[in-house]
Amino acid sequence: MVVPRLIERKRDGLPLEPGDWTTLIRAYVAGEVPDYQMAALAMAVVFRGLAAEELSELVEAMLSSGDRLDFGAWPIPRVDKHSIGGVGDKTSLLLAPMLACAGVAVPMISGRGLGHTGGTLDKLESIRGFRTRLSLDDTLRQVRDIGVAMIGQTPELVPADRKLYALRDVTGTVESIPLIAASIMSKKLAEDLTGLVLDIKTGSGSFMPERTQSLDLARTMVALGEGRGCRTVALLTAMDRPLGWACGNALEMAEAIHGLRGEGPDDLMEVTYALGVEMLLVAGVETVRATARQRLEGIVQSGQALEKFVALVEAQGGDPNVVHDPDRLPRAAVRRDVVALSLGTVQRVDPRTIGYGVIGLGGGRQRTTDLIDPSVGFVIRVKPGMRVERGQHLATIHAQDDGSAESAERVLERAISIGEPLPVPPLVSHRLDATGLETLEAG
Amino acid sequence: MVVPRLIERKRDGLPLEPGDWTTLIRAYVAGEVPDYQMAALAMAVVFRGLAAEELSELVEAMLSSGDRLDFGAWPIPRVDKHSIGGVGDKTSLLLAPMLACAGVAVPMISGRGLGHTGGTLDKLESIRGFRTRLSLDDTLRQVRDIGVAMIGQTPELVPADRKLYALRDVTGTVESIPLIAASIMSKKLAEDLTGLVLDIKTGSGSFMPERTQSLDLARTMVALGEGRGCRTVALLTAMDRPLGWACGNALEMAEAIHGLRGEGPDDLMEVTYALGVEMLLVAGVETVRATARQRLEGIVQSGQALEKFVALVEAQGGDPNVVHDPDRLPRAAVRRDVVALSLGTVQRVDPRTIGYGVIGLGGGRQRTTDLIDPSVGFVIRVKPGMRVERGQHLATIHAQDDGSAESAERVLERAISIGEPLPVPPLVSHRLDATGLETLEAG
Repeated sequence: MVVPRLIERKRDGLPLEPGDWTTLIRAYVAGEVPDYQMAALAMAVVFRGLAAEELSELVEAMLSSGDRLDFGAWPIPRVDKHSIGGVGDKTSLLLAPMLACAGVAVPMISGRGLGHTGGTLDKLESIRGFRTRLSLDDTLRQVRDIGVAMIGQTPELVPADRKLYALRDVTGTVESIPLIAASIMSKKLAEDLTGLVLDIKTGSGSFMPERTQSLDLARTMVALGEGRGCRTVALLTAMDRPLGWACGNALEMAEAIHGLRGEGPDDLMEVTYALGVEMLLVAGVETVRATARQRLEGIVQSGQALEKFVALVEAQGGDPNVVHDPDRLPRAAVRRDVVALSLGTVQRVDPRTIGYGVIGLGGGRQRTTDLIDPSVGFVIRVKPGMRVERGQHLATIHAQDDGSAESAERVLERAISIGEPLPVPPLVSHRLDATGLETLEAG
Repeated sequence: MVVPRLIERKRDGLPLEPGDWTTLIRAYVAGEVPDYQMAALAMAVVFRGLAAEELSELVEAMLSSGDRLDFGAWPIPRVDKHSIGGVGDKTSLLLAPMLACAGVAVPMISGRGLGHTGGTLDKLESIRGFRTRLSLDDTLRQVRDIGVAMIGQTPELVPADRKLYALRDVTGTVESIPLIAASIMSKKLAEDLTGLVLDIKTGSGSFMPERTQSLDLARTMVALGEGRGCRTVALLTAMDRPLGWACGNALEMAEAIHGLRGEGPDDLMEVTYALGVEMLLVAGVETVRATARQRLEGIVQSGQALEKFVALVEAQGGDPNVVHDPDRLPRAAVRRDVVALSLGTVQRVDPRTIGYGVIGLGGGRQRTTDLIDPSVGFVIRVKPGMRVERGQHLATIHAQDDGSAESAERVLERAISIGEPLPVPPLVSHRLDATGLETLEAG
């Protein structure tokens, strides 16, 4: 393998030869291929893409770079859900315990906030004591024991992705559909899953605002999962507005707890059930959508989902009283209500502005080393299409102090626009599996 | 300056902002921008190119990274010639002394063999004792003294290019017209030139076989030179066959010496005079082509050119007797004549095959650390379009031993094809200056 020749092949639009990606990734992880060659190759991939065979080999090579979960002959199906990132998206917090009550195991590996989007790990850590760093052995044990674990990526899991992602992050090579797909799928496939459901966000608040791009990514990931015997389905869901009302870590945790009691905002519950139904189907424990949905609703209404979440929090060292009494979550010193200054219809609640607003309040990171304040954020009670009166309550700001509450008011002014009604895209617009694309609701 | 943002801009097809390239190159040379970021950026430039303003700023930044020749108020015009690389091209060895006899100073900085092409430094070093490593101060002194110096790139000259070129060489990012232009022109403009003539090789043996690419490179370099007050002209010359008869360092030096006596092969003399005329014109010492040509022919016929070359060799520590008696150059142990096996017209003498054949004989490098044998190579007496009889002498192989002479015979069999006549491209087909492109002879 002569690395410059491989880079030139890719640059010139030719696929690498079978075996090249395997050798390359092995040598890269071993430190035998320097970062500057990998960076040039990654940029060539941004422009030239990867053939299906190359991508499949790359994912396999990344998987082989580290340890994996291995449930052996354990008969319980395992499923996970992965979202490409959103604002106000707390579906994972609801789905993991719900699914674990339905005879499905959920070994969920999540991430932290990235850009304007929130991260499940940050939300979990708003519960005092909750440990997201579990070893793979402890994770296996806990999943076998209570059916669910929610952890962060461990150092031994897909080290090739850790190294490559860190490089891509500083070399302008994140925005490549095959590289994004390889990064996500190598980690998910390391979980030894029966099935996987992908939540592909679309709209202005998505990392992939263009629907053609979202679909391309979804197709690529579905093909990768299915190609390795993991049933994979993708839903395209709206991220032109935040999901639910709460944006901010503890606020979202509280909303998730309400949701586990069946009291979550409609849009959040709708997307949660839609994803949960697909999870039951790919797990093979249900075959009919309506039945699967009823089962999940029953699990929520019976209180089982909430109890499973209590068990999860306890197992991972968190304070379980929080689940019974969300007021025990960290609370911000300043709360400020914001009202409508005019009469009209809510046109937009811009998720990107809101997401960066949460960071501005101290609830997210500007740098990876920043500490975050879990208490701050927004609770926005209006949705696009809603009619509001002058003076009507729109949102509550949760801030550390008056100064940042002041700035957050400006954020809301920019984020929420009121005027003539505009079309509202459907919440769950498309479903994609190995057999093709299905339009669920036209936008 | 946030480097990943700059890389992303370029990746997305936007020019960097004014000042960005300056800051970037300064930080890169200082080691503050890592190679992996520069490699990703270079690959993005391969795909996206550089706007004229960016390229101009990049060249200025590279120039500013090191020392330059500075002739101050010295009234003598300075010219140089640069070729993008060829096989059998010994025009520099003739032009430098010829021009120095015409009231023009030639501070010539040359390179070594690259790929299948030969390098002027390697040819000069076939003269025992000839030193190509001169400091910039010594170079200045010698040029003021005898009007000519022929040296290699010094460490203090355009260090940004040294660092960037070494990186591009191992990251598949050499093939970019603006980066090639920036690399060449930053070094040439560091010579404090009045004028510059570019020999853009075209045809199968060129690094840029496509005429559109050659022209694009020529246009880019002419614009860069003119933009910095250096009159710049490019000639497109044929590299679908070797130039002259000799290919190999000492053999080419001998042929150059014959050329300085007016006894060189027609094609070599033709290209040499064509380039030399342009050099006199950009220097401003002649304005009429025919007069300029007569002047150069007179300089050769009078023996002045040869005497100037003797002075140059002496000044740089070489054995001047070699110039009077080229048989003193290193001679190969084995000489083998090759004859035509069939009657017909020479269709092709493939320069790339011949160039690699010289390397195979030991006369070039496979790795940059290889030592080369100056004595070996080919003297090929036939040109495309020539009619040959069966048994007619085609070429002489100069080899270290019978084994390599044997292999070199196979090289010649592949390189020289005889059959029905094929069209022969013109030697000097186009001329390009700031006012535009002129077709000299249609191909």
